[in-house]
Amino acid sequence: MHTRYLEDFTPGEIFRTRGMTMDESAIMDFARQYDPQPIHIDKPAAEAGPFQGLIASGFHTHSVVFRLWMDLGLLWGSSLGGPGADELRFTAPVRPGDTLRAEVEILDVTPSRSKPDRGVVRYRMTGLNQRDETVLSVVSITFVKCRPRG
Amino acid sequence: MHTRYLEDFTPGEIFRTRGMTMDESAIMDFARQYDPQPIHIDKPAAEAGPFQGLIASGFHTHSVVFRLWMDLGLLWGSSLGGPGADELRFTAPVRPGDTLRAEVEILDVTPSRSKPDRGVVRYRMTGLNQRDETVLSVVSITFVKCRPRG
Repeated sequence: MHTRYLEDFTPGEIFRTRGMTMDESAIMDFARQYDPQPIHIDKPAAEAGPFQGLIASGFHTHSVVFRLWMDLGLLWGSSLGGPGADELRFTAPVRPGDTLRAEVEILDVTPSRSKPDRGVVRYRMTGLNQRDETVLSVVSITFVKCRPRG
Repeated sequence: MHTRYLEDFTPGEIFRTRGMTMDESAIMDFARQYDPQPIHIDKPAAEAGPFQGLIASGFHTHSVVFRLWMDLGLLWGSSLGGPGADELRFTAPVRPGDTLRAEVEILDVTPSRSKPDRGVVRYRMTGLNQRDETVLSVVSITFVKCRPRG
């Protein structure tokens, strides 16, 4: 219903998502499968480590923040996939109990030269915690359909 | 046992991992939680979409390739976490049944100026499928401990 096509995005626009709480069980469950480092799955080792406690895998944080952005539904009917991302940075630890939300700022909107039915949207996605501290920043790219004609 | 410290990495070194098969169930399970776009969870929609079939979420591929690299164990005793990554690109679709492996090339090794017990290792991580096609490429950064003295 509220799909946004290429023409519907404007550089400078900012979208804000709802939040999601990263509980300890979810943090360890993700990490056991995809990033089983001691700081993510071993509480005593994590307490003795550089962050003085368990923190979420960056892959988990990145995935959750992206999911919150996707959940807005703007791209459900118009995304043609994403070729990648740049400048991914984890700027503060995500600890059990932290609640994440995302802010997405549209950076640029570029129609394809070779394929008139699509273009590229580049946006900066920022993950924030409940104290409005930035925990993640990344510049992402998505191929987006143009609005269907007729 | 085979932990590598900062001094043990050399630019140009290449590490190769074992493989992991991305089955359809794992692809949909990850995507249902973290990237529920039609091309990852809705088979008829995916077949009608840009890749003519279900493909893995890029977040899933990135996480699996990183896990294969971590599983080598080189950083188990020496990693101090990663501040981020650059130039993440998904260069070919990952389909159900594809088997991924990773190659990691050390790009540079830089001792910290302010903290003599650690440094930064930058490396290019490449995900490849069973046909040796590159499916993912990313430049990652990890803080690594120096070898303990004495």
